[in-house]
Amino acid sequence: MTDNAQPGRVGYREIADDLRRQIDSGELPPGSKVPGENDLTSRYGVAQLTARHALDVLKTEGLIVAKRGSGTFVREFKPIRRVSPDRLRASNSWGSGQPIWATDIGTRPRTENVAVDVELPLTSIAEVLGLDEGARVVVRRRTYVVDDKPVQLATSYYPEALVAGSAINEINTGEGGAYARLRDLGYEPVRFREELRVRMPREAERRALDITQDTPIILIVRTAYTADDQPVEVNEMVLDSAAYILEYKFTSQD
Amino acid sequence: MTDNAQPGRVGYREIADDLRRQIDSGELPPGSKVPGENDLTSRYGVAQLTARHALDVLKTEGLIVAKRGSGTFVREFKPIRRVSPDRLRASNSWGSGQPIWATDIGTRPRTENVAVDVELPLTSIAEVLGLDEGARVVVRRRTYVVDDKPVQLATSYYPEALVAGSAINEINTGEGGAYARLRDLGYEPVRFREELRVRMPREAERRALDITQDTPIILIVRTAYTADDQPVEVNEMVLDSAAYILEYKFTSQD
Repeated sequence: MTDNAQPGRVGYREIADDLRRQIDSGELPPGSKVPGENDLTSRYGVAQLTARHALDVLKTEGLIVAKRGSGTFVREFKPIRRVSPDRLRASNSWGSGQPIWATDIGTRPRTENVAVDVELPLTSIAEVLGLDEGARVVVRRRTYVVDDKPVQLATSYYPEALVAGSAINEINTGEGGAYARLRDLGYEPVRFREELRVRMPREAERRALDITQDTPIILIVRTAYTADDQPVEVNEMVLDSAAYILEYKFTSQD
Repeated sequence: MTDNAQPGRVGYREIADDLRRQIDSGELPPGSKVPGENDLTSRYGVAQLTARHALDVLKTEGLIVAKRGSGTFVREFKPIRRVSPDRLRASNSWGSGQPIWATDIGTRPRTENVAVDVELPLTSIAEVLGLDEGARVVVRRRTYVVDDKPVQLATSYYPEALVAGSAINEINTGEGGAYARLRDLGYEPVRFREELRVRMPREAERRALDITQDTPIILIVRTAYTADDQPVEVNEMVLDSAAYILEYKFTSQD
């Protein structure tokens, strides 16, 4: 309650502020149960609708999460730390046979729903990859899962002419994954550009990532280039924003 | 309408899908008016509540925006492109007397609500800056405004002992801004670390950025280091996600 709140005049904002302060201070730690509507109505002497509104504010802010049938809880945020450029250094990950992902979570992630197709790309993809009209791409779609929760949908595009016959066309790309195969083919990716946008999820994304309607997503489009500046991969990623901290390190000389 | 929708059985999802397709294809271009509830009820033969629900879905996805009294419109996305590390190169911006921001928007941005204070920092800030207990920081708060719309709230912290007596303590930091002053003092920032998180806005952030409750924010914490790895600034930024595309360029050798 704010200092100047008068008895009987408490609104949903004051209640939300109170609870937020308890969460920020650790009085209500991650994973702990948040007072329910009934608790709040009796504690603050407000109508049920006011109590509900206060909880809605904190849900929208992503501070608390309702679990069907068991109540409302302070969100547990154990984010994946995704550090660039470290994660893409050959010496750290794929160059030594590890998936790039291992750098992020320190363990082997689960990859689900892997699908490999050969398609005619959208104009936007064809342009970035510098493809002639009619040139096809190998498309790799997969979902990354950590602790049984999907955290990222990824779709990678490779010029078919470049990767034909390699394991990039297989479900299992082998030791070190697609980047190691590109190196085998003489197209080692060494320069990267990541473009980030943030928005609310579309229905299909919401379902695929198993997130609520109130959880934003991060869209990352990465283009990978060889030392000769030839684009060899475009990777479109959709991240559950609640699952990630992104870190970028660079110098003014880069 | 999906192919298998039956007359009289159209739901809000089918209507939302239809409108989304029209927006994605450009049939409903950015800035154009979206059919209202009454249009939708007669066009699809559904109840007003169904029409409203369909529009709510697209509002939550950030595709359309209601303007009080004049209807609902396809969002116009004219994002600011914020390219790192380019924007922090001394040769591009502050080293030649320009604000770093000029690199992002190609023109001089407006800075509002500039406030300079000397404070005891939070432990988290003190730790990053490597400060002893009791050491104070100069805090610079400001709001960046583009086309009359606040797009970013920024709070920079500098060790007081480092910047005492310099223009970093003034409202106007002079040509090239704080980074040029740090260089004058012998502490040129050359290495940077940016940490990104995404979440829904808190009420105060929502008001300060003049965004809807459905617009996520991007939190960026940047730490700037000298060539000797001395931390000289922590900058906490809160970005209206709808106003930005973030771009990071790096190599596997960085």
